[in-house]
Amino acid sequence: MRAIVVTPETEVPHVREIARPEPAPGEALVRVLRVGIDGTDHEVIAGGHGGYPDGESHLVLGHEAIGVVEDPNGTDLDAGQLVVPTVRRPVQGGPTTYFERGEPDMAPEGHYVERGIAGEHGFMTEYVTSPAEFLVPVPPAFAETGFLIEPISNVEKALELARASRSAFEWAPESAMVLGNGSLGLLSVGLLDAAGFDRLYCLGRRDRPDPTIDVVERLGATYVDSREHSLREIPDVHEPMDLVIEATGHAPHAFETIDLLAPNGVGALLGIPGDDSVMLDGGRLHREFVLSNKALVGSVNSSVPHFRAALDTLAAFPDWLSEAVITDAFAPEAVESAFESDEGRIKSAIEFDTL
Amino acid sequence: MRAIVVTPETEVPHVREIARPEPAPGEALVRVLRVGIDGTDHEVIAGGHGGYPDGESHLVLGHEAIGVVEDPNGTDLDAGQLVVPTVRRPVQGGPTTYFERGEPDMAPEGHYVERGIAGEHGFMTEYVTSPAEFLVPVPPAFAETGFLIEPISNVEKALELARASRSAFEWAPESAMVLGNGSLGLLSVGLLDAAGFDRLYCLGRRDRPDPTIDVVERLGATYVDSREHSLREIPDVHEPMDLVIEATGHAPHAFETIDLLAPNGVGALLGIPGDDSVMLDGGRLHREFVLSNKALVGSVNSSVPHFRAALDTLAAFPDWLSEAVITDAFAPEAVESAFESDEGRIKSAIEFDTL
Repeated sequence: MRAIVVTPETEVPHVREIARPEPAPGEALVRVLRVGIDGTDHEVIAGGHGGYPDGESHLVLGHEAIGVVEDPNGTDLDAGQLVVPTVRRPVQGGPTTYFERGEPDMAPEGHYVERGIAGEHGFMTEYVTSPAEFLVPVPPAFAETGFLIEPISNVEKALELARASRSAFEWAPESAMVLGNGSLGLLSVGLLDAAGFDRLYCLGRRDRPDPTIDVVERLGATYVDSREHSLREIPDVHEPMDLVIEATGHAPHAFETIDLLAPNGVGALLGIPGDDSVMLDGGRLHREFVLSNKALVGSVNSSVPHFRAALDTLAAFPDWLSEAVITDAFAPEAVESAFESDEGRIKSAIEFDTL
Repeated sequence: MRAIVVTPETEVPHVREIARPEPAPGEALVRVLRVGIDGTDHEVIAGGHGGYPDGESHLVLGHEAIGVVEDPNGTDLDAGQLVVPTVRRPVQGGPTTYFERGEPDMAPEGHYVERGIAGEHGFMTEYVTSPAEFLVPVPPAFAETGFLIEPISNVEKALELARASRSAFEWAPESAMVLGNGSLGLLSVGLLDAAGFDRLYCLGRRDRPDPTIDVVERLGATYVDSREHSLREIPDVHEPMDLVIEATGHAPHAFETIDLLAPNGVGALLGIPGDDSVMLDGGRLHREFVLSNKALVGSVNSSVPHFRAALDTLAAFPDWLSEAVITDAFAPEAVESAFESDEGRIKSAIEFDTL
């Protein structure tokens, strides 16, 4: 069967024939429909993040998938059930504490591998196997859009951590800004819109006309051009934000989020940055952080409850949104085009099959 | 009656005769016993923080007090009851939302004045009045040490915010480090010791013999010299910290706390810094923050429930601790000595009276 892989020699994703996997006891066999592409895939390809499975000289890419149960193999799943797989798995023979408590997303490094990212093959292939507990059932309506559940689940987790950080007092957030208008940023805006935030902003640095700005504005959110205003100026130009979701991975944004927040506000950091040094107005930011009771939470990955919440969010999206975000679906053979960047493109998927 | 004041002309705290206040309806009259001195007082004196009451050309200092009810004035308090006053009061004619919900510590700037700090006279005088709701009753045993309840209450609040930020998942912190071995740092170590942390560390930059190091070690905590190890090195030299309480107000420490934290750890920022610029290894810190689910919470001030928790903490302190921290009690006339810094001194108080 076909799989999209990277190898140390080529570092460019390409199609390779691999053996169809056999489900082990407790695992189901899943026929893959679509697999999304995101920034992490590009980082994996560039070698900046992740790694090959032990003893393997290739990695099957892909961690945002939707598929259909081909063979339940004695698990509780039914054949034909649509499922979204989670990403983290225990290290073979390693500690499983965080998995046992249902919080693999909180496991420290060394306690997990990540399918399609680090140490275990991903979902960008025709068939995959997975323990049934890591397959989240979704209704048939999401056969084409369900691969968005994984990225949305990461935002759900970040929002959960953000809300928890404000749970010691009465907190009723009204204004929110998403930093970044990539696909994760736009899904975050969609999520906050579905969660009832009326005063929504999205920061980007693109010129109109632009399909991401169209999505932001169609959601009723305000597009803010980071080339026109620094994060520090935005509270004066627009308003201070009760909640910020950082989805750019630009390190100065992470710390300058403190400037952007309203008193008692929280910034959830989702974007994964490179290694730049940063010159900060550190004393002032620190002072503001303390005197206004602000908070920052870092958030990575997600667990089954976040996938379930993400399914609800996807179901609550306006009809047009998923379609507007998923701009392209490529056949596996068109892998090279699929991984190209293009201003008109928001989210691409590789389509292996349809329901 | 005598009061210790600062004025724009002198900016050195000195004794002034002022009129004894009359309690308004709902207020009790309190005879002040002791008032502690802390870093905020020094900032107020230096003009870097706070401000004079409207229309006044002096400010009575002091926000850490213990006193005894002289005249309940029809409130629920009894004459002779020992009380500790909270610090924030509503702005005359201003918004009271945060006070009504019992969370003045979360009120944004402009919604409050702070007694002895900004906009309202403090407690460093023989008698003060206060609405009864801002007077927290304490048992007679704390007549000499009760002024520690205010600074401890600030740590209680920081810890509450820190715990809340980790409440979305299973978090059982075991290791903790306090940055700073000033009086607030030592009270934080005492609080964490009383809260059951066995693996406790305290960061300072003093040579032995030193009374603060003695307190740290008598509490069973490990003293770490910041001149020997950067925050980034400490996890290797000692261990990564599940919880950090930043009580130095040194801006680089606030951000480098990210390096010090274990995965899923939280840093509570209590110290109030100046305005230094800071060069950070920002990308790496941001990356670590996200990939290890870390959190930072800023925390200022405290409300009645935190004062009550602080009373419990003070009661749980080992017998010797308060005495070791309160190194000096000065008569009001010795105010100049009281505000001098001295390596042998940890916490000074002005003693107006005894029970």
